[in-house]
Parts: sequence; structure tokens; C-alpha cells
Amino acid sequence: MKEIKAGLIGLGTIGTGVVKIFQKNAELMEKRLGARLRLAKIADLDITTDRGVAIDPALLTTDAYAVLRDPEIKIVIELIGGYEPARTFVLEAIAQGKHVITANKALLALHGDEIFAAAEKQGVNVMFEASVAGGIPVISAIKESLCANRIRSVLGILNGTCNYILTRISQEGLEFETVLKDAQAQGYAEADPTFDIEGIDTAHKLAILISLCFGTRVDFKSIYTEGISRISALDLQFAKQFGYEIKLLAIGKLGYGKIEARVHPTMVPVDHPLADVDGVFNAVRLQGDFVGPVMLHGRGAGMDATASAVMGDAMAIARDLLRKGPVRTPSLGCAQASLADFPVRPMDELVGQYYLRFGVLDRPGVLAQIAGILGNHDISILSMLQPERQIGGAVPIVLMTHEAGEANIRAALDEIDRLDLVREKCHLIRIESDLA
Amino acid sequence: MKEIKAGLIGLGTIGTGVVKIFQKNAELMEKRLGARLRLAKIADLDITTDRGVAIDPALLTTDAYAVLRDPEIKIVIELIGGYEPARTFVLEAIAQGKHVITANKALLALHGDEIFAAAEKQGVNVMFEASVAGGIPVISAIKESLCANRIRSVLGILNGTCNYILTRISQEGLEFETVLKDAQAQGYAEADPTFDIEGIDTAHKLAILISLCFGTRVDFKSIYTEGISRISALDLQFAKQFGYEIKLLAIGKLGYGKIEARVHPTMVPVDHPLADVDGVFNAVRLQGDFVGPVMLHGRGAGMDATASAVMGDAMAIARDLLRKGPVRTPSLGCAQASLADFPVRPMDELVGQYYLRFGVLDRPGVLAQIAGILGNHDISILSMLQPERQIGGAVPIVLMTHEAGEANIRAALDEIDRLDLVREKCHLIRIESDLA
Repeated sequence: MKEIKAGLIGLGTIGTGVVKIFQKNAELMEKRLGARLRLAKIADLDITTDRGVAIDPALLTTDAYAVLRDPEIKIVIELIGGYEPARTFVLEAIAQGKHVITANKALLALHGDEIFAAAEKQGVNVMFEASVAGGIPVISAIKESLCANRIRSVLGILNGTCNYILTRISQEGLEFETVLKDAQAQGYAEADPTFDIEGIDTAHKLAILISLCFGTRVDFKSIYTEGISRISALDLQFAKQFGYEIKLLAIGKLGYGKIEARVHPTMVPVDHPLADVDGVFNAVRLQGDFVGPVMLHGRGAGMDATASAVMGDAMAIARDLLRKGPVRTPSLGCAQASLADFPVRPMDELVGQYYLRFGVLDRPGVLAQIAGILGNHDISILSMLQPERQIGGAVPIVLMTHEAGEANIRAALDEIDRLDLVREKCHLIRIESDLA
Repeated sequence: MKEIKAGLIGLGTIGTGVVKIFQKNAELMEKRLGARLRLAKIADLDITTDRGVAIDPALLTTDAYAVLRDPEIKIVIELIGGYEPARTFVLEAIAQGKHVITANKALLALHGDEIFAAAEKQGVNVMFEASVAGGIPVISAIKESLCANRIRSVLGILNGTCNYILTRISQEGLEFETVLKDAQAQGYAEADPTFDIEGIDTAHKLAILISLCFGTRVDFKSIYTEGISRISALDLQFAKQFGYEIKLLAIGKLGYGKIEARVHPTMVPVDHPLADVDGVFNAVRLQGDFVGPVMLHGRGAGMDATASAVMGDAMAIARDLLRKGPVRTPSLGCAQASLADFPVRPMDELVGQYYLRFGVLDRPGVLAQIAGILGNHDISILSMLQPERQIGGAVPIVLMTHEAGEANIRAALDEIDRLDLVREKCHLIRIESDLA
């Protein structure tokens, strides 16, 4: 029976999951592959900590290059995360003619162009199902099953930490800081949660999805990124009164030669499937010109689910290695020369509905002042709530607008925030109506 | 640029969708494939009806064998449906060394063994993403992305007609017959809806999913199949009071060397994602040992969505044809010799919770009689509703049981249905608790 050897760099949480699958499902994978896929070497700086799996010590090394330069290893699995030395290792693996599997969304979002170009030049594959939405097979759905479709849009709940926090605020009425602390205590949030809660992790994943869906390179810095740290229980209460949940959405759309690429808290109608994605779960919703809407839902993180995605890629590459010819499906779904360079549409060009929460002094005429300024900027009000409750010396006024331009909204809020009667910077949440 | 020729047999609804994709997205597919995929011949008995697409008359033929025996055609797309002549055509295509794509679930559920064995012998691929859940890429998710997982269970809402009818009964309180007539008028149900509403179409699809998920042949006749024609608005009202929706579920599980393979109306908790799958939409929920639960949701039927699935398969085969070697992924995810022959667990061995609705005369003691018989068969009652309303000279008694054996339930209901005070055969709906 043929044998294909893989090497692993990074024996952290996901790496340990990968080892577990290799051990537990070896026979199953062998049956499905018609060949043996073997984990031949594992590199990590720490090879002494007990990770709860029994590993033959002969497989372990502290030298990544022992994996990268082993001529028998055809597949390198990079699971160390971060930019360096991951980038150097991945490029070295490619230079050595090895296929690469990575779960490293930060690396791909910022250095994907370099990595995919190098892979194409070397005739090797770089696969990365585990980099977006954990175990959910969204990358292969785009590259393979839906590849006869022109993808119109991609929407994602891609960060389990944020979704866990928003779900608990929504369901229990707790405040952001309280839930964050609890999430940290339970291991659902990092000690330094900035990457997650400020939306950066979600933006990394969105960059990858946009490249795949629209066949384009995308400048990561041009993705508008806003996190959830300003969302309060009050906003989720009001959202519900208007018929919405608040989710941190990654939004990618292609229209008129420009890409919408944005990550921000978003009001989603309660009866929309994305509103039901709770807790640490992730979901991705694609809109194809023929398939229509397709939604994939599952565990977006965690040792086992992410390892499942890594091993799906490993099996795919193994299947390719049993045949001959060029890389079967290029990393981004088409050859580098076919990639477009669509610019990202500036946020000022956005048109949509907005939720605006003002904190104002409880005086007559304040609503008239706010409405007047909004009107001056062509913004009309769809509905209004002015509950009788005081928060920090101010009362909330909540407005939902009709469709309005983001530039107009920005200009109006600049004026309103400077009013004497306004005690707090306006809380703005975008409403996503194009969810089909 | 290399060119790969495909032939189409059957220019009905889906076939027309396939032609549309070939026309509309040719450039896109060429970019992604790095080669040209061309529809070279189309066979249908009727080549004169206007189907709303412009087709070069030179491509059209009334002779299926002109497609099947064209040496230049490498991929045959079978979209005529039914058992014959579809079976003969598919076997002929295989005999001619061609790869086959089919959307024909009835054919595969009953003649899959013969077809897949013939394909393996000839070294060709038979792909069938379009046969289950329309545009939703569930077949490739099982065969490819999740192939490092042992699949524990598969649950599906696989028939748009049934789901449309159940959704409208649930939301509008209409009766089955009324909604069915309306669905027929709107084209959501066939003139003869038997295959759909009696669950046979769902069972065909379940047979395919079970083969893939558990790597086994399955005897179609052994799948327990119960449709939705006995479901009334009353059942959906009671279901809601208990916190459930009613869905026609396809259920496949593997445990202790036997398969659960059953299609029946099922109570699903309202907060479960499957309960939110409304109207003509389909969804499949898989439970893998590493990935955990994954749910895929989308359009389960219709010209465009189903054609998207056909073309995803066509692109996959085209990608394989650009390389050399044996079939990349066998039709059922593993070689024929590796397939198991797990028997289907008899329904009598099932253990679960049940919803029971009795129609009884409004006399004292009737509940005691029913409860007594249930108790004699080791069935205990979790909750009870006895609303004061008369229907056809009887009043309903509704019970939810604790976990009980199906054999015990059957024996008890046989006794109860024969009681003088009982005016109507008991309405039984199974409750699915193992939805994780």
C-alpha cells in the first residue's frame, strides 16, 4: 500500500487535535484514501509538555527544518500561528517542493499574495480550510462545489469569542465587560482579547473569503474593521424591540467593479438564519448567481473541529499525490494571472439603514434639533424610541433611519455629537437589509 | 487551451439550468479551470419546445446514443430521471469509459450498487451532488472536506414540497389538503404528489446519504418511510405548546453495527437550527467525531440551484481529467471492496420520546384507561394536554411520553385503538432528542 508522509510544525491545541485524528481515524482514512497517510515528524519548541496524547518520541523534534527539509515528507502542516517564523517556514516548505496546509489566517491575510505566488511558481498547493470558520467546510465549498457560480456576496459570523459575548449580552442582559471577564475565565476569550473583540481576527478571515469568492487580491488595510467593545446591553434590548439581533458580521460583496469589505456590529433581522447562530458557533452565508443562498453552520474553533479541517485538506492533497499532473485546484481557485485587483469601496460610498442611539439631556426640543440636522443631511427617520430612563445623567433617544449614505450619516453625527444637549458620542450600528 | 467536452441527456428543468450556466458562466469557469469545459451535445426526445434559452440546433439530438457513444465526450450528464431508460443510459456511458453526473436519486437509491460497481470496474467516476438537497454541497462535504471524520449521524430536511406544506400549516394554521392544493397550484407540488408527501423522495436521498456517511450499502426497502399526509394543523399547534416544530426528517445513524434509517414526521425543538428551516429550503445536519455538528442550508430544488450542483461535479471531473491516474475520490468515498453491509435496525428496536394524540369520547375515566395501558407497556407520561374542544364528536388527549421502546408503543397503541371510547386511530409523532 502506498504511503504518503506529512510533517507537522506546531504542537499546540490544533496540532494536538491533528495528532489525535491521525491516531484515532487512521484506519478510516486509509480505507477512504486507498493509501496510508502518515504523520512522520512533529516539530515544536516544546516537546516535553504532556498534551494528553501519546506520541512516539522518535517523531518529535525541536527543529522545524527537520520537517521542512525531510525529502520524504510531501505535506507540511503549519500550525504555529502568527507572522514569523510561520511565513519563513511556509515559504521554505514551498521552496522545498512540499504542499502546505495552514490554519494561519493572519499570515494569509497579510502575506497571502507572496505565499500563493510562490506556491504557483513551485507547482505546489497551499490549502487553508482551517483558517476560516474552523471545521465548517466553507473554503472547499467556494473553490470546489460552488465553482460554477459567480458569488455575489459572503456574510460571516467568524469569531466565536465575539459571538459568545454578543449572545450572552442578548440573552442575559449583561454588560460587555462582565461577559468578557467571564469568557476569559472560561477560556472562550484570550487574556489579551484585542484581536478578537476589535474585529481584527474576523477581518483576516474576511480577506481570505473575499479573495476566494471574487477571485481578487485584497489589501488587508483597506478592510473597514470595527469591533464589539462599544455594544451595550441597551443596544441589544432596543435591537430586539425593532426586530433585530446584533452580530459581528464580516461582509463581502462585489458590485460595479468594487468590493465591499467590512467588519462591524450589524443588526440582523431576528427571523434570518444568521440571527440564530449562537454562542461560539460560526456561520457563513454565500449568495451565488445560480445556487442562491447557501449557509454553512458549525464549530468555528476548538481543537477537534479545526483539526478536522486540517485533515480534510491533508486528505485532499494525498488524493492529488496519488495522481499526476499540475496542482488540481489553485490555492485561490484560479491561477494567479487570472486574479483581479478590485479596489475596496470606501465606506463613505456605503448606503444602508442605521440604528443611532444618542445620550441626551432630558430637555424639550432636543429631538427636534437632532431630527433637523439629520434632515439637513438627507437622512430620514423610519422609527424612534425615547424610553423614559436615565443613564448617567442622560436619556437615550434611539432612531432607525431609512436608507442613507454613510458619508451623510458621518457628517450629521459630527454635528450632533457637538451639540450641548448631547452627552455622549452617538452609538451607530449598521442594519444589513441585503441578506436575502 | 485544453478543451473538455460534456454531453447532456435530458433537457428538462435542470437540464435547461445546466445550459444556462454553460452559457452565462463559461468565461468564469474557464478562468477557474484553466481549460475550456464545453457542452458539445444535448439529447432529448423533445428538441423543439422553446425552453427560454437559445441553443445552437447543431448541438441537439433526439438520440441519447449520439451522446453516449461520441468518443470526444468525456462527461455524460444524465438528467432524465426515473429508473429506465436512465439506468441503461448511465450503464452505457460507464461502459463507454465516460464519467457520469446524475441528479437521479431514485436511480441511485435502487440501482446504486450496480452503477457504482460498474464505474469502479471501468475506472470512471459517477458524481451526484445534485441528487440530494439541490444546490447544497453536502455530498462533497461528506466525501471530501469531512473525510477525516467518522460521521455519527445525518439528519436532513430533504424535500421542499413537504417542508413548504408543513411550514404553511405551522404558520397559517391551514389544513394539509388546503395547503397541498395551493402548493400544486403554485408549482411547489406535483400533480401526483405521492413520492414527495409520502416520504419516498426523502428516503431515496437518505439512502444515498447513509451510503456515503457510513461507507455502507443499504437496502432501500428496509428504510422506514412515513409521510406527512396525516399531519394536521392541530398537531402543529400542540407541538408549539410543547416547544416543538414538526419537520419531515430523514434520519441516519450508525451504532452497534446497525444503521438507523428512517423518514418520518419528527418533532424538533423550536430552538434547534433545523426548526428554522422554512418553506422550500432544505438542510442537512451532520455530526462528525471531530468536526462536531455541521449544518448546511440552502435551496433543495429548482432549476438554477440544482444545475449549480451538476456543474460543480462537472468542474470536479474536468479538474481530474487535466491530471492522470485512477479516479481521485470513489463515488461512495471509498473503494467498493471497503464498503460495509450494515443491516438496518428494525423500528421495533427504536427507543425515543413520542407525541401521541388520541381522539376520544368526552367521558370520565378515558384518560385513566389510556394511561393504564401505557403503564402496562412500560411507557410513562411526561406531560399531558386535554383541551376542551370537540372535533368530529371526539375530544383530543395529547400525551408526550418519556423515553420508551417503539415496540412497546406499538403494542400499547394497538390495544388503545381498539377501546370503545377511542374514536380515531392514534396520531403518533416521534420526538428527536438526539439532535446535539
